[in-house]
Amino acid sequence: MASSAVPDIVIGRLPVYLRALNYMAEAGQEITSSHELGQKLGISSAQIRKDLSHFGEFGKQGTGYRISHLQEQLKRILKVDREWEVALVGIGDLGHAVARYNGFKNRGFRISMLFDSDPSKIGTRIDELEILDAVKLKEQLRARNIQVVMIAVPAAHAQQVADDCIEAGVHAILNYAPITLTVPPGIKAQHLDPVVYLQRMSYYL
Amino acid sequence: MASSAVPDIVIGRLPVYLRALNYMAEAGQEITSSHELGQKLGISSAQIRKDLSHFGEFGKQGTGYRISHLQEQLKRILKVDREWEVALVGIGDLGHAVARYNGFKNRGFRISMLFDSDPSKIGTRIDELEILDAVKLKEQLRARNIQVVMIAVPAAHAQQVADDCIEAGVHAILNYAPITLTVPPGIKAQHLDPVVYLQRMSYYL
Repeated sequence: MASSAVPDIVIGRLPVYLRALNYMAEAGQEITSSHELGQKLGISSAQIRKDLSHFGEFGKQGTGYRISHLQEQLKRILKVDREWEVALVGIGDLGHAVARYNGFKNRGFRISMLFDSDPSKIGTRIDELEILDAVKLKEQLRARNIQVVMIAVPAAHAQQVADDCIEAGVHAILNYAPITLTVPPGIKAQHLDPVVYLQRMSYYL
Repeated sequence: MASSAVPDIVIGRLPVYLRALNYMAEAGQEITSSHELGQKLGISSAQIRKDLSHFGEFGKQGTGYRISHLQEQLKRILKVDREWEVALVGIGDLGHAVARYNGFKNRGFRISMLFDSDPSKIGTRIDELEILDAVKLKEQLRARNIQVVMIAVPAAHAQQVADDCIEAGVHAILNYAPITLTVPPGIKAQHLDPVVYLQRMSYYL
């Protein structure tokens, strides 16, 4: 398993496969095929087989994939067979919604720290979790050995927050602010600006 | 300009270029280069020049790009030199945050319709906009000739909402629900499930 050789675009599809398998499993389904997965996801079955072949043999010709086995293997490959603690920085409207979002459960991530710089928010709670003072961001991330953060601060502050997180040992940043973060080699950043996704569709309208 | 021949992955990068140019312009900058853009975005300058070359000549060797011109051209190519009306379906925590998000302004989209099926929400307003009864979704989308929707309903309802939207003439769907939508050829769907983006980073941790 030469994982360093797997193209990032392949890695990007694995979570989508895993999510589809989770739905099938929840519906009580036990076996699937690259054909069925492909149809659901709008990806060719050949592409799915090729993507998975980077990591070994998961199914037999003609018998398809055992869903529970493929789920387990994908979770292991994506390192979500454990639970990562995640810090969320910026508790505005969007941050608040993300903090309350229940879609993280059982998928490898748990929001365990909230930060904001607004004195009227610091010390208040969302569900069980207290909003901490962003002034202590670096110190607290280090103390908890946090490697994954989500940033939902205004665009003008996002790069500084990202720099602080990276300095504190963070390696993966999911950024909701509408700006592309500049990060050093070895640090991963993903961007969730809805307008970028709308614009890549309006091209086709 | 053979736009049908441009790979989708190239189209996907254009909004990122446009966003970076917007920031430069706001900061008063007038000229940039593929080198500078590439450094900011973590993309090679050769890739940027190649992407843009699909659409013509935007800069001169050695003099760089005039930002205002490149902005105009990218807006035209992405069809955001106009404003698309967008309907948002599902006004839970996340939908509410999306409805109040001010990042759409001047980027080609305006949320002009809100829908939910919760009787306690229908008829209430977010800022100026009334939440409409989702029972009337198809009828209202047709009446307003809406082509772009955002879906923020629970995963279990997202496919049905998408089907209804498509039946009503929608061609582009931005989906926040954690499920991959199955859409017919010619319809575009983009997915913003944060866990998919976290998982594609945890692979590298």
